[in-house]
Amino acid sequence: MWYKFFMAIVECIPNISEGRRQDVLDACAAAITQTGVRLLDVKPDGSHNRTVFTFAGEPTQVRAAVIALFDTAIPAIDLRQHSGEHPRMGAVDVVPFVPIEGVTMTDCVKMAREVGAELAARHQLPIYLYEEAASHPARRNLEDVRRGEFEGLAKKMASADWTPDFGPSQPHPSAGASVVGARMPLIAYNINLATNRLDVAKKIATAVRNSSGGLRFVKAMGIELGDREIVQVSMNLTNYEKTPVFRVFELVKREAARYGVQVLESELVGLIPQAALTASAAWYLQLDGFHDSQILENKLRD
Amino acid sequence: MWYKFFMAIVECIPNISEGRRQDVLDACAAAITQTGVRLLDVKPDGSHNRTVFTFAGEPTQVRAAVIALFDTAIPAIDLRQHSGEHPRMGAVDVVPFVPIEGVTMTDCVKMAREVGAELAARHQLPIYLYEEAASHPARRNLEDVRRGEFEGLAKKMASADWTPDFGPSQPHPSAGASVVGARMPLIAYNINLATNRLDVAKKIATAVRNSSGGLRFVKAMGIELGDREIVQVSMNLTNYEKTPVFRVFELVKREAARYGVQVLESELVGLIPQAALTASAAWYLQLDGFHDSQILENKLRD
Repeated sequence: MWYKFFMAIVECIPNISEGRRQDVLDACAAAITQTGVRLLDVKPDGSHNRTVFTFAGEPTQVRAAVIALFDTAIPAIDLRQHSGEHPRMGAVDVVPFVPIEGVTMTDCVKMAREVGAELAARHQLPIYLYEEAASHPARRNLEDVRRGEFEGLAKKMASADWTPDFGPSQPHPSAGASVVGARMPLIAYNINLATNRLDVAKKIATAVRNSSGGLRFVKAMGIELGDREIVQVSMNLTNYEKTPVFRVFELVKREAARYGVQVLESELVGLIPQAALTASAAWYLQLDGFHDSQILENKLRD
Repeated sequence: MWYKFFMAIVECIPNISEGRRQDVLDACAAAITQTGVRLLDVKPDGSHNRTVFTFAGEPTQVRAAVIALFDTAIPAIDLRQHSGEHPRMGAVDVVPFVPIEGVTMTDCVKMAREVGAELAARHQLPIYLYEEAASHPARRNLEDVRRGEFEGLAKKMASADWTPDFGPSQPHPSAGASVVGARMPLIAYNINLATNRLDVAKKIATAVRNSSGGLRFVKAMGIELGDREIVQVSMNLTNYEKTPVFRVFELVKREAARYGVQVLESELVGLIPQAALTASAAWYLQLDGFHDSQILENKLRD
């Protein structure tokens, strides 16, 4: 018996501005899955009034799924009627393409541009490119692109700095504007410390995160795990190739030792790409000349 | 586009007593591949007059491939005419089943018993079960089962201790007897030391290997890498679940430190199961509650 498998895998995690009407979410999910991609997760949030879809598949399937999602969501969602806690500026708010296997970041950037152009033409919708697909450094960060939200969009777009990458220079009346881009997979990675001293967790978070001088692709904060009477360095690793998991772990461990504190354990929240684990094994074992083709399972997939 | 993939994977590494006649090897390879398994490697050795086939696939395919291999090899190979340096007692000498993915060792032991019984009936061939499939501790080691070789087989089989597990109590006239069993994948793993002191490599090998008091599933020896003026602890890890790679590496590193020697690097010769690398990453990163289903690629294969 054979099992179907993808040759190349792109992951896509679109966020739409609807988290309450189940019929709309069902229609969006159906639009995505009819293209052959695998829908991995649907996370609606009622108070944010927002839903995150996670799916993956062949690049051509993923592209078709994004088009189908916009075709379904744009007529169904009117941001003029939308309220919720989460910042947003589009009916389909943000669409990142993520390279998983057999595709490069360059491929995903190309996908973002092509899909962005197609969506703009199809719906007369302004599209901004962000992260790795950004046309300008000022557009890399989603927060900067989205600042002002739907309500401030017409004014923002009037400025020459915020001409969209594709589509008209005015917001779509009901759907606003969408942000499309490419990024590495996120790894949600926490390290628990054998202490209840929150100040230590906070000092370590400050030391290791990019924003305060630490590692380039680490976001971190120190929090209390009250029920266990320990503290945690809670992190997002935004590019595991350039800032690998093992280096983050070793740096946190070293910083903790400075305060006489030991690492109790670490944990992954959600998914991790296989390559991030393989790289950690190879580093710790000091494996020289190791290549992915030495993994037995890969020999069965070439 | 979809790619074909196996649901469960058993690897099989039959050794046949023919390493010179290409037509026989081609016929054996064709018999194996027509069942749908993936033939990963064919290693003929002229001076041993022996060939090792490595293939993998679904359990039912692997079983059919082994039957087809015996059907082809037994009429083609006559041990009465066979000479070569390697010990052997059968036309098809030894057949291990190895669990890779989605199958347990228990499944592979069951396969070995069923296939062994079928081969015995089909060819009036004595079959011994070995390693995890052995019916008695004295039959676990291949070397013990094969001692005396083809030429001593009639005499050996006359003893009550060596009644075969399946088939007649006399050797097959031309094909002798075959050894069928189940074992874990072998990992050929070497650690290079930053020294040219061979005595240190040998002392470490003695410390870590099972035969002289070390770890249960480690075979090791100390050797010189003359061209690089360093030494190596050269190992076979015969059960990476019970004696994991990281524990071997850490023990070698600690023993080396005792002599003031550092580990330069390690290397894998050939293939390693993904699970062995994942377990190493999880151990070093102190990952708590980690489960294989958190590997993104696995979500696409469930």
